[in-house]
Amino acid sequence: MNRKIVVVGGVAAGPKAAARARRRDPEAEITIVEKGELFSYAGCGMPFYIEGVVHDVKELMCTPVGVVRDASFFRKVKDIQVLGRTEAVKIDRSGKKVTVKSLETGKTYDLEYDKLVLATGAYPVPLPIEGIHLGKVHHLNKPEDARSIRKALEEGAKKIVIIGGGLIGLETCGAFIARGCQVTIVEVMDQILPGLLDPEIAGLLSKYLKNVGARVLVSERVTKLEEDETGNVKKVLTDKREIEADMVIVAIGVRPNVDLARDAGLKLGATGAIAVNEYLQTSDPDMYAGGDCVESTDIVTGRKVYVPLGSTANKHGRVIGDNITGGETMFPGISGTTVFKILEYNVGKTGLNEKQAVQLGYEPVTCLAPSPDCAHYYPSAKPFTIKLVVDKKTGKILGGQSVGSGEAIKRIDILATAIRFGATVRDLAELDLGYAPPYSTAIDAVAHAANVIRNKLDGMAKALTPLEVKVKMDQGDDFTLLDVRTKMEVEQQPFNDPRVKYVPLGALRERLNEIPRDREVVIFCKTSLRAYEAQLMLESKGFKHVKFLDGGIVAWPFEL
Amino acid sequence: MNRKIVVVGGVAAGPKAAARARRRDPEAEITIVEKGELFSYAGCGMPFYIEGVVHDVKELMCTPVGVVRDASFFRKVKDIQVLGRTEAVKIDRSGKKVTVKSLETGKTYDLEYDKLVLATGAYPVPLPIEGIHLGKVHHLNKPEDARSIRKALEEGAKKIVIIGGGLIGLETCGAFIARGCQVTIVEVMDQILPGLLDPEIAGLLSKYLKNVGARVLVSERVTKLEEDETGNVKKVLTDKREIEADMVIVAIGVRPNVDLARDAGLKLGATGAIAVNEYLQTSDPDMYAGGDCVESTDIVTGRKVYVPLGSTANKHGRVIGDNITGGETMFPGISGTTVFKILEYNVGKTGLNEKQAVQLGYEPVTCLAPSPDCAHYYPSAKPFTIKLVVDKKTGKILGGQSVGSGEAIKRIDILATAIRFGATVRDLAELDLGYAPPYSTAIDAVAHAANVIRNKLDGMAKALTPLEVKVKMDQGDDFTLLDVRTKMEVEQQPFNDPRVKYVPLGALRERLNEIPRDREVVIFCKTSLRAYEAQLMLESKGFKHVKFLDGGIVAWPFEL
Repeated sequence: MNRKIVVVGGVAAGPKAAARARRRDPEAEITIVEKGELFSYAGCGMPFYIEGVVHDVKELMCTPVGVVRDASFFRKVKDIQVLGRTEAVKIDRSGKKVTVKSLETGKTYDLEYDKLVLATGAYPVPLPIEGIHLGKVHHLNKPEDARSIRKALEEGAKKIVIIGGGLIGLETCGAFIARGCQVTIVEVMDQILPGLLDPEIAGLLSKYLKNVGARVLVSERVTKLEEDETGNVKKVLTDKREIEADMVIVAIGVRPNVDLARDAGLKLGATGAIAVNEYLQTSDPDMYAGGDCVESTDIVTGRKVYVPLGSTANKHGRVIGDNITGGETMFPGISGTTVFKILEYNVGKTGLNEKQAVQLGYEPVTCLAPSPDCAHYYPSAKPFTIKLVVDKKTGKILGGQSVGSGEAIKRIDILATAIRFGATVRDLAELDLGYAPPYSTAIDAVAHAANVIRNKLDGMAKALTPLEVKVKMDQGDDFTLLDVRTKMEVEQQPFNDPRVKYVPLGALRERLNEIPRDREVVIFCKTSLRAYEAQLMLESKGFKHVKFLDGGIVAWPFEL
Repeated sequence: MNRKIVVVGGVAAGPKAAARARRRDPEAEITIVEKGELFSYAGCGMPFYIEGVVHDVKELMCTPVGVVRDASFFRKVKDIQVLGRTEAVKIDRSGKKVTVKSLETGKTYDLEYDKLVLATGAYPVPLPIEGIHLGKVHHLNKPEDARSIRKALEEGAKKIVIIGGGLIGLETCGAFIARGCQVTIVEVMDQILPGLLDPEIAGLLSKYLKNVGARVLVSERVTKLEEDETGNVKKVLTDKREIEADMVIVAIGVRPNVDLARDAGLKLGATGAIAVNEYLQTSDPDMYAGGDCVESTDIVTGRKVYVPLGSTANKHGRVIGDNITGGETMFPGISGTTVFKILEYNVGKTGLNEKQAVQLGYEPVTCLAPSPDCAHYYPSAKPFTIKLVVDKKTGKILGGQSVGSGEAIKRIDILATAIRFGATVRDLAELDLGYAPPYSTAIDAVAHAANVIRNKLDGMAKALTPLEVKVKMDQGDDFTLLDVRTKMEVEQQPFNDPRVKYVPLGALRERLNEIPRDREVVIFCKTSLRAYEAQLMLESKGFKHVKFLDGGIVAWPFEL
């Protein structure tokens, strides 16, 4: 008898699992059940539809050659039955059938299965405040949401408030700015992307957002939405102010859709998502789960984490497709790699950030290493900054963050690959990466960052982070801030602080007597390279307490 | 007493070693001896100076903030003495001194050393034909060469012949085309980049070059250069034709400068370059060597290879700087990663190509996997093709090649990193790479390529390479070429062969009876994804001898 496979959820992991199963088993009877109207779409593309660079939401449902992946496509090309607008309401595990309900007709009926796949996705965390149900208040979870948001923009919405400074909030923010909107982001935590980035990296991103005209409000809680006479939102009230709004986007995170799994008695993990083993099998051996409804294993720490991402969902789909057709494919886990683009700024993270590393008991060594993304004399060169987080004891790379207008994401991918294999900073510095002037510096930015950490581990490089220097400045410490840049750089971008003493690196050997020997010296330049050189020079001349500012001016996350 | 360090060679590895040594030892007396006029320059940037995107050759000698790295810079900033226009003529190993000669004054004198560093670089292979010394016949080895070439262009040279289809020849070719020149490349071997790329990948590049107007002549030998009345070249004679030329670039490879080392009795390797151990120490423990004059260890095979590249030279410099100041830093080797940009086309290779793998006794499984470089609906999406070479026995990645207008080099860096750690295709498919629509497809191109190989290793995917299909076509084999693309694709880019039968994938299940069952079927589409799907479908319906064309139309290296 032919194997019966039912897949609940038709966005990413579900269709992928079904398609893979079909390739491995031409005889199986495969059915996908999808609650929504649309199907097999690229959810991550929605911000670009809002921005307008993707013209029709249908494009997110097309194959690369323009064929729409609808029910007819799945039937004709893959011999897979798709039940659209159909909800799975109950699973009978002993009877091995799932009860589904057509949202068109209201009719319920049963589907038998040998293997059942749950790919039920995630839903946006609701915000329990007054006015949350007003018109022009949207989540961004489904293509229907994206359509409503774009319609509002086309009807003239200009003042946008985004509640939540997370991934979806920021991607959407970029889309709105590109369309000429006035955008305010309100984040309740003390930085944007609090779960993702360390504060100084989030600070660099905030600085960029302010430069392109966005208002970023952190440590601020939205308390109420006020309506206009037509029932649409007109004002956002926070614990600190009122903000006018033509439209509000609520993006305070997502949670896994686990009702069906929980009701069926499947085991959930501590993260709240469905628990699966390395075969993506649930606590019921005939049920598999993947995508945004399951938790993952963090390959750096071995812990269970909830990181819902389209890339993982697609990988899950292939693994599940194997295992429901007799295969034995394992999914090793993730390193939490997350990347996004906001206008011309690239942001990425993989592995642990410093906060997470400290929480987990590591003693991390970090660096901020700004670099051009290719030979500085090549016309397309753009700057970006890498933060590496390294275990002091072993030299192993725990994680990396990379931000800037330069090619930051290539380096995240290199780091994600290196972390997968437990690479140390030495390994990273020695990688034989591709070098030609249009692609990288002769020593690539990741290798440079690794070398900075090696210099710190060897005791040669001594740095203070921007956060540490800012604290010293704010508490009025007495120290010399030694600026070793060229005259032209100083004129273009002065560092305004009374402690600053200016001696360009080329003159430092001759003018050592101008530097007070009785005080701490914190040296800086554009990126910290020359400052490091100056640190060594001063030390060789008997100066004590000399450090450089990690990352220099480029990675300074505060106003200058 | 202070340590005396003499460095012979002032381009890349030399100055880097000297600078690193200074950072580790503030007291050392460090001297760099450089024969040429210019110093510490980015040799790899010369094609871009020729193209004109780099305006002044001095830019190649500047730090990122515009400070020229000249002798004065090294003295003031690094306390390193640079002897320019000075040649090292003899090494007295027992006396530990090196005799140098000023090319300005002719004066010779000795420099004592405790540690001597050889960074003598490479020289262009001479071409022993009549006319090689004519005017407007250039190598591209030094900034002086680049200046002469650019001057000739500015004086109106239009017809350029490049002898040698290697790395330098091709990079220069791009520069000339960008300036509106008519360029002919003459390569004696039967493909361009013969040591680097497999033939079908070289074929894709040749196709691109022809599209942008270059003439590519392979299996053709230059026999003579003819002069005009002023003593400049006017014609290139080959064994097949005559080609008019206003300028000729001779780029048939480079060889290591080892005269000084050989005369001093140092051991040379089988590659002809200076032999060094993992500390970059020569056969004389007080002499180190790095950069283009030494051979490297290939980390994939353990063999010694000669791959002179600026990135390796810079890494060598740091290692040598450590080891001549009491450190014990090892350099593990290279994977031969080579990348370059020619106009809008990106070309890269890491590890072994298929030819090399076969020569070394591996049984490689390969794939040609074209892909967009980011979500296909994102406006900047561009195509490129990855060729993976994998060891059939172990599933280990032996090498990768990547070409196209899309972001091919990011994937080369991912592969270089993976290869460093002995990754298998399964590892590669599972990497947690950064996914967002502007950066990649949900399953990134490298993971997709890895999955294609996994499908081949599992016996699911059955493909013929373009070379194999071309042979079958050329020898008049009787088989069905089944085109499963959409009607619009077929109209836009027909595949002109009488064997072609057209049935779009969506109609294939219903029209199976149109496909002859008694003949071999080779299926193709744009990239081979749908063709693979069709292969499985036909097989499930009892068809025997069904294969798909690896890489589809996109990776077809011949005329359509």
